[in-house]
Amino acid sequence: MKVTIIGGAGGMGRWFAKFFKKSGADVTIVDKSARTGEIAAEMGVRHTKIDILRDSVGEVVDTDVLLLSVPIDITGAVIARVGPEMRKGSLMMDITSVKKVPVEMMSRVTGEGVEILGTHPLFGPSAKSIRGQTIIFVPVSERVGALYRQVYELFERSGARIEILSAEEHDRLMSVLQGLTHFVLIALGITLKELDFDVERARAVMSPMYEILMDFVGRILHQDPRLYALIQLNFEMGEIHKTFLAVANRLYELIAASDMEGFIAEMRDAKAHFGDTERAMRDSDDVIEAKIERGK
Amino acid sequence: MKVTIIGGAGGMGRWFAKFFKKSGADVTIVDKSARTGEIAAEMGVRHTKIDILRDSVGEVVDTDVLLLSVPIDITGAVIARVGPEMRKGSLMMDITSVKKVPVEMMSRVTGEGVEILGTHPLFGPSAKSIRGQTIIFVPVSERVGALYRQVYELFERSGARIEILSAEEHDRLMSVLQGLTHFVLIALGITLKELDFDVERARAVMSPMYEILMDFVGRILHQDPRLYALIQLNFEMGEIHKTFLAVANRLYELIAASDMEGFIAEMRDAKAHFGDTERAMRDSDDVIEAKIERGK
Repeated sequence: MKVTIIGGAGGMGRWFAKFFKKSGADVTIVDKSARTGEIAAEMGVRHTKIDILRDSVGEVVDTDVLLLSVPIDITGAVIARVGPEMRKGSLMMDITSVKKVPVEMMSRVTGEGVEILGTHPLFGPSAKSIRGQTIIFVPVSERVGALYRQVYELFERSGARIEILSAEEHDRLMSVLQGLTHFVLIALGITLKELDFDVERARAVMSPMYEILMDFVGRILHQDPRLYALIQLNFEMGEIHKTFLAVANRLYELIAASDMEGFIAEMRDAKAHFGDTERAMRDSDDVIEAKIERGK
Repeated sequence: MKVTIIGGAGGMGRWFAKFFKKSGADVTIVDKSARTGEIAAEMGVRHTKIDILRDSVGEVVDTDVLLLSVPIDITGAVIARVGPEMRKGSLMMDITSVKKVPVEMMSRVTGEGVEILGTHPLFGPSAKSIRGQTIIFVPVSERVGALYRQVYELFERSGARIEILSAEEHDRLMSVLQGLTHFVLIALGITLKELDFDVERARAVMSPMYEILMDFVGRILHQDPRLYALIQLNFEMGEIHKTFLAVANRLYELIAASDMEGFIAEMRDAKAHFGDTERAMRDSDDVIEAKIERGK
């Protein structure tokens, strides 16, 4: 199987290059980075150093699987550029963290004989192996063929947890799981700055849960802000943001009015909806216990 | 050393009864619970089944260390009730999660010969041991004596991390660490309900970080809402809440206006203030890795 990875010199691109190489595929990375050749040599894969949006794509589409591993804001443009050139029987696959827009675009610009697979790996380039990691597959029913099945089996055999979702289900779930949680953690991080709160000094009095939470804030702030901006801009976040803001305002007002019963009622309703809070308690106990063990 | 624990049949009361008993102290639990005698027998300690706010407190104050382990909303009343009766040379100690109000109250209502120690244990009744756990001590300089030193040494010897803070420092730190983080996680929990988001179904597509975060939401919702309401009401949360709401609104507006550069600038400033985000990244990687290991 010939696998070509556009954006293959980037973090996720390299991760997938190694993954496919290990599985025996003939891998080529395509990237405009000056270090493309060097990076390919390190991994023992082929390379094509071109700017996919400017240069000729002839060579690039001469492949079985074409994996797009490019920033979310140029995914559309890259699909539009290479999609129409893809040969019959090959598979186009993306790993963008939104799915509706790229999957629709892939279906629209490629020929009917081209297979399509939208994916969203729920792990980052620091993952040591795919074993136990989750990857979401968004197949397009009339574009599923032999290569799709081969890729599916490869991930399954490697120990990945494959979740099949529609693009709509995916985007709805992720707009809350990623979009809303990022929004809240980023707002928390900015608030710590506005309050001039000294995180490092406070570490001495943080119990493990607060330390973990603060580290999640720091983790997000540490990473590429562009990526987080793009996630907020690419999901349909409007109603979700507005709902959170309304809730936070309501909660603030209950507290400002010392309305203890109102506050308690809000928490009880949220608990009833959440479901298995007992499990959340047990699982978070484990996480906290592991944190304490490491700290000793 | 004679240790008497008011509220000794409750979760934290029992925890401290066992802790002091193990250290060789002569422990008595005082509680109005019908199960007081049974609970004391299980732990092998003495008991006095009375309602501290109604019954005679004579027997209760015949002790060296009087530890108050009562709900935050009656701490003041209990201090007012037993404080004036405490004998010279004995120590009054509380474990309330706010410190300014109870420490001031203990200083005001007890005689000058009574030692005072405000504490805030940063762990819950599920902690298996005090080793590695943090407890904040808020001593009152003119009320520190032989018993304070004995208690200090006992905690130190047992492996606790003792952090000494003023009541003001404590309340400021905790209003952000506990007050603000609870506020945000509770608001997130209520938002999940308003959005009718199915947490259990979403677990299949949660990467470990989101699972941990969702479990923190569930963890808080699982516990006594009254306790969380009291924390919001007893810290000076007004400015902190307002700052968070203003930030979240600003962030929402930047996203609604597709102001990518504005959003990125906010994140960069927050990162610069946060400090060692590299450490946050590393430490949260460990937490996530441990979560994955357990899940396998």
